Formats: sequence, structure tokens, C-alpha cells
Amino acid sequence: MTAEIISVGTELLLGTTVDSNAATLGQALARHGITCRHRQTVGDHLGRLTEALQLALSRSDLVITIGGLGPTQDDLTREGIAAALGLPLVAQPALEKHLRAEFERRGLRWVESNLRQTMLPEGAEALSNPHGTAPGLWCESGDKIVTALPGPPREFGPMVAGPLGERLAAKSGSEPIQTRTLKVVGVGESRVEELLADLMAGSHPTLAPYAKTGEVHLRLAAQGSQAAADAVFDPVEAVIRERLGWHVVGRDDESLESRVLDLLASRGETLAVAESLTGGQVVERLCRIPGASRVLVGGVVAYVNTVKRDLLGVQPNTLQEFTAVSGETACEMAEGVRNKLGAAWGLSTTGVAGPGPDSEGHPEGLVFIGLAGPNSTASERHVFGLGREINRARAAQAALIRIYRDLVHI
Amino acid sequence: MTAEIISVGTELLLGTTVDSNAATLGQALARHGITCRHRQTVGDHLGRLTEALQLALSRSDLVITIGGLGPTQDDLTREGIAAALGLPLVAQPALEKHLRAEFERRGLRWVESNLRQTMLPEGAEALSNPHGTAPGLWCESGDKIVTALPGPPREFGPMVAGPLGERLAAKSGSEPIQTRTLKVVGVGESRVEELLADLMAGSHPTLAPYAKTGEVHLRLAAQGSQAAADAVFDPVEAVIRERLGWHVVGRDDESLESRVLDLLASRGETLAVAESLTGGQVVERLCRIPGASRVLVGGVVAYVNTVKRDLLGVQPNTLQEFTAVSGETACEMAEGVRNKLGAAWGLSTTGVAGPGPDSEGHPEGLVFIGLAGPNSTASERHVFGLGREINRARAAQAALIRIYRDLVHI
Repeated sequence: MTAEIISVGTELLLGTTVDSNAATLGQALARHGITCRHRQTVGDHLGRLTEALQLALSRSDLVITIGGLGPTQDDLTREGIAAALGLPLVAQPALEKHLRAEFERRGLRWVESNLRQTMLPEGAEALSNPHGTAPGLWCESGDKIVTALPGPPREFGPMVAGPLGERLAAKSGSEPIQTRTLKVVGVGESRVEELLADLMAGSHPTLAPYAKTGEVHLRLAAQGSQAAADAVFDPVEAVIRERLGWHVVGRDDESLESRVLDLLASRGETLAVAESLTGGQVVERLCRIPGASRVLVGGVVAYVNTVKRDLLGVQPNTLQEFTAVSGETACEMAEGVRNKLGAAWGLSTTGVAGPGPDSEGHPEGLVFIGLAGPNSTASERHVFGLGREINRARAAQAALIRIYRDLVHI
Repeated sequence: MTAEIISVGTELLLGTTVDSNAATLGQALARHGITCRHRQTVGDHLGRLTEALQLALSRSDLVITIGGLGPTQDDLTREGIAAALGLPLVAQPALEKHLRAEFERRGLRWVESNLRQTMLPEGAEALSNPHGTAPGLWCESGDKIVTALPGPPREFGPMVAGPLGERLAAKSGSEPIQTRTLKVVGVGESRVEELLADLMAGSHPTLAPYAKTGEVHLRLAAQGSQAAADAVFDPVEAVIRERLGWHVVGRDDESLESRVLDLLASRGETLAVAESLTGGQVVERLCRIPGASRVLVGGVVAYVNTVKRDLLGVQPNTLQEFTAVSGETACEMAEGVRNKLGAAWGLSTTGVAGPGPDSEGHPEGLVFIGLAGPNSTASERHVFGLGREINRARAAQAALIRIYRDLVHI
């Protein structure tokens, strides 16, 4: 079965909105084993939308439109589909009753333009939209299917996962494609490719690397049931873990930060963070994980030297002799935050985010990470140097990798 | 002049990559007054790419492809353009010389497949790519233009701003569209629409609102030179500022956080932040601004009560009587961080991010903001309640709005 996506909306062509819905849908189609060969994007214009639908129907079995289902005059997707299929639009009293009840339940004022949302091409069914008022539609006509979903992502995503997904599974006739993602830290993409060249040449599962900031994601994919795919993934994952060792930090929903929290929780130990150039990024990433408070005591953002000295207890001598951008300061920050906040571990960052060198002439991108554990304190030095945002993100990543390595004893 | 975008890449159809390049290009075309009515997305397949190019050439003056210009067998855009225009691909010795020199300069190993990147359709010119090895191309044929840009966003963006932008400006024949964005806080989108209904009905400039998290962006747009547009924008901006008052926090590159830092800097005052549920988001947003250190002393992330007590000096009585999620605790956190870090202002957040209520039964989304200034301390209460991520983002936004209002005396 082949599918084609038509994204509708002038804001997409003007570039004021990035079309993340199309990517969400592309992933869902791939998961259901449905081949998507074309995508079109058109503005809120009935003629061009109808032409796009006709072209799609001439070459694809299933056409999925995104957007243009609201109540305003700009919302023309229903009309376009009816025109392309040569079907009349028919009022659906049951849909109107449902919609009026929804408006009342949500305390919204009913306006007559909402009646547009109760019209469907003859023979089409409504697809329920649990997060909005505009229903989707599903229309089978001859050997073709046209289906339409609303554009707001918080309505669109649940509909792809729910009502549309069920119909795709029923219609696709192919087995779904299952995926598993392994997250790899502390080693570059090209080295990963070298180490796994034989596995990447395989096709069941396929294995592809994706470079992220300070991380490589390995995506395994195989067609079949979840159980069948797991049976294919498990031995390959075992080989990858054997070859890459501690570099494999987690799988699917696991992340570097969730893994650090889990490792600490399993030891019953706590963490405090002292940040200079990363300015709260390390602690913020940890705080995003629900339940972080069982491990994360808190953090100090010590942007100026007086805070490093007064709040974290960094020695004035250290700051004078070695400056704030030094392994010595990183170590004292880590020890200071551990002691002041009463945690088992203290983790620190200090360095030059940029733009440009600091007042003492340290180059942009020079970063020191400090880690004070139950048994010892150490620092490590990095030079990134690719711009303020990336330096800060890479430094936060390096800090989390540093404690992760210690926790897995590398 | 009409343009059409063709995005090339199987990863776009599979949804593993979101097509942000197309949005970047859409914005650039709009700025140059070029109408974009269609966008197509195809995979790495010569036949379908050639068909897409032929369709685009049949209805648009200018066709711009994104991606598929690399050295591998999957990179077929050059071949597709040559086929669609009926032109041979011709080796360019000058381009080869330039590319070999680039490889040497960057210390990259030359492989023969790079020669693919030195082929152009007959009569085409190369577009220089300062951030990568794959050059773009520009090909005029009859009354049509086809131009191709490489896909990696860090190569693509500078080429759109640079060499492509210059050619679009020269060819468009229309005046560019200039824009100005005003950032509005502390008032909802529907109220803004009510207050500015007459201005939004106007067409020179056009005025449109965009809802962001805890913020509304007002986008003014007008066609013409920068000076002509400024002359149209200035009086409208003045009316908007008069009607919305302090709610207009900044314009274009200004943001809520940059404005807070600027207001403090102009008073010669400093800021320290104490965060509970926001976990570093407030201080992180401030740290992103280059030069934040002239104002921002630092911050404390007090995720657990012992840190609120020991490091910030929140009274045990306060925590016991009012709990950590209270206006009283917010005030003491703000005062504590101001005193401990020696800043003029202390700003704090405490609340329940969720999921679910806290152990004391406070509902998800209940948030208190505390602000200790040179003259007084106060707290304010919010109930958000829309999920962990949004609660944390809204709380950070509310904290920054709180101090911004105090600094502009509202």
C-alpha cells in the first residue's frame, strides 16, 4: 500500500510554521509498513488543494491531508476532498448533535460557522478528535482512501496514535515496522560506524546511526510483530553492547540523565550540581525527569567568583592562582556543592562559553568538569569552541557523561 | 515571480527528520516578495525527483531544491535537474581544483566519489557553500530558473542568507517584505486581538498575533525598503505600545530575559535566583544571553527542603506551618538567595510540577513566585495545571514577568 501526505496551510509555505506533523505521520506510516513516496504542501486555496488531491489520487492508494478542517472560511479541506472525489458534501445531524454537546460541555459559545465542521463528503465517516472540536474524516471511494486530520499538533498527534493508527493497521496489509533506539555517549559517529560496520550492512534488523549533540543514536528497525522484532533486536543489541560497552547509556525512553538518576537511586546516593558556564543546564536536564527529587538535592549556579567563593567555599587562593577556569576550581566547586548541600556526589562545570575569550585570555570553548564522589575528587579538561550555545550544551553533556562513567566504574 | 520548493530525502518522508529547511526558505522567499504556492517532498529516487522537477517547472518560475547534493550514490539532485532540463552534466575543472584545495585545507581525505560534486548541468553556475564541501548550483534555462542547495541546516541557512539571498533579491522584481516582531507578556491572545482589532484589519502594515508559551508575538509586515517599512511600522508600534503599555516587553531580538537583564544593568543592580520546580530554567534562560554575568550573580536550585533551609535560610517553622509550596516559602527563598549571594534582587519559584499532586496534597500546577527587591518582598500565586513540562515553563515565564513588572514599576 502506498500513501501520500498533503499538508494544507499558507503558514507552512510562508515558513512561519515548521511542518512537524508531516514527520509524525511519516513515522506512523513507516511503522505500519505503508510506503510514503510523495508529500505535497499547498496553501489555503481550493483550486490548488483540489489539484494536489487529484495528483495524489492518481498515484497513491491512500491520501492523508493535514490541516484545513477548522470552522473558518480559510478551512477548505472538506470542500477540496469532495471536489477531488466528485462527491457532494452532506450535513451530518449526528455530528452536529455531538459537536453542540461538546461545546456545551467545554463552556464554549456555539457559532453557526461550526456547522461547516459537520459536513462530510457523501459516504465518509468522521474520525473522533478527543483534543479538539474539528473531527477528522475517512472516505473510501473505489480502490482509494482519502483521510483528513486537523492541523494543531496536540490534536493531530493523538489522532495519529489513536483512531487513524487503528485504521492504518487494519488497512495496511503489511506487518508494522518496529524500532528500537540505543543511545551512545563518549564516542564519535565515525568510530561507531567502524565498530558496527558488519551490523549496519545487515537488513534484518536494519541499523542506522544518527548524530546528536555529544551523543549518537543507533536505530534498529525490523518488520513484524513486537515479539518477532524483539527476537531480532535482542541478539543485535547484545552484540552492540558487548562491542561498545559503557558507551551504550540507554534504550528508547532512557536518557543519559535518567540513567544517572537511576544509577544513583539504586545506590541510595544523592547528587548536587555547581554550574558556571552551563548556567543551570545540567540541573535543568535532571529536573525534567519525573521523580528527580529522590536523588537530586539541588544545585548552585555560580556565575561570578564571589558566589564560587562565598556559597561554594572555593578558596580565594585557588581563584587567584589558577583562575575560575581551571581544574582546581572545578574540583573545589564540586566538593563545595557536595558539602554545602549535603549530597553524596558533587558535579561541577566551569569554562568559557564565549563569544570570544574571557578576561584572563582563556579561549572560547575551554571547559573543566569537576566530580567529587564518596571516595575521590577529580577534574577533566575539554576544548569545544564551536559557539556559545554548543559550548554550553557540550559542557552539560560532558558533565553528565563524567558522573555516568564514574557510576559504572569506567 | 512564483517559486516552488522541492525537498529531497527519504528521511523526510520517513519522518526521522523534520523539514525545518523548507520553513527557513519559505521565510526567505516571502521576505523577497516571491510567492511560493507549492512545495513537494520526494525521496532519494531519480525518477520521482525528475517528475517532481518537471511538474514544478510547468507551473513555477523558480524551482529550488533542498538536499541530495552530497558525494554518495543516494545524492541524485544534480542528475535530476539535468534530466528535467534536458541538459548534460559537465565536469567543472575549476570546481574540482577548488574542492581539492578545500579538502586539503580542512585536512580531509580526498575520495574519488567527490568528483560527483564537481559536475553541473551545462550552463549552470556553482553557488559557494562556506560551511561544507557540496556547492549549490544556479541554472537559468529559457524563462525558468532551477537552483539547488545542500541539506545540512548549518550549510543551508548561511547559503539562503548569503549567495542565494543575493540572487533572489536581484531576480525577484518585487520589493522585499520587511517584518518587525513585538513581544507581549502578561495578557492573553484573545484580549490582544480585542485591543488591536482595528490595526489587525489594516493591510499596510499587516499585523498578526502568534501565541507562544506565556507570551504573544505580534508580527508587523510591509513590502518595501527597510526605511519605507520602518516609516510604516513606527506609528503602528507607537499605537500598540500606547494601548498595551508595559505588556510590550521587547522587539525583534529583545526577549523577556534580555529586557530584565538590560533594565537591571541600567540601574547597576544585580540578581540572584532560587528555584524549586523550575529546576534551573529561570537562571538558564538568563545565562543564554551573552553578557548575562554583568547582572546575574548566580542561582540556587533548591529541590529539597533541606537545601531551602540550610542554603537559603528558609525558616523550619515556615516549611512546617505553610509547607514548601506557599507564598511564605517563596518570599523567604527570594530573600535568602538575595542575601546569601549578595545581590540587589532575589527571585524565586516553588510549586508542584506534576505529574499529580505533591505529598501534601497541593494540586499539580500550583506555583508561587517570590520577589525580594531593594525595598520590599512579595509573592504571587498561579495555578497552571497542564502537564509537567508546561507547568515548569509557565512558572519560569511567570517569574521573569514578575521581576520585569517590578523593574518597570507596574
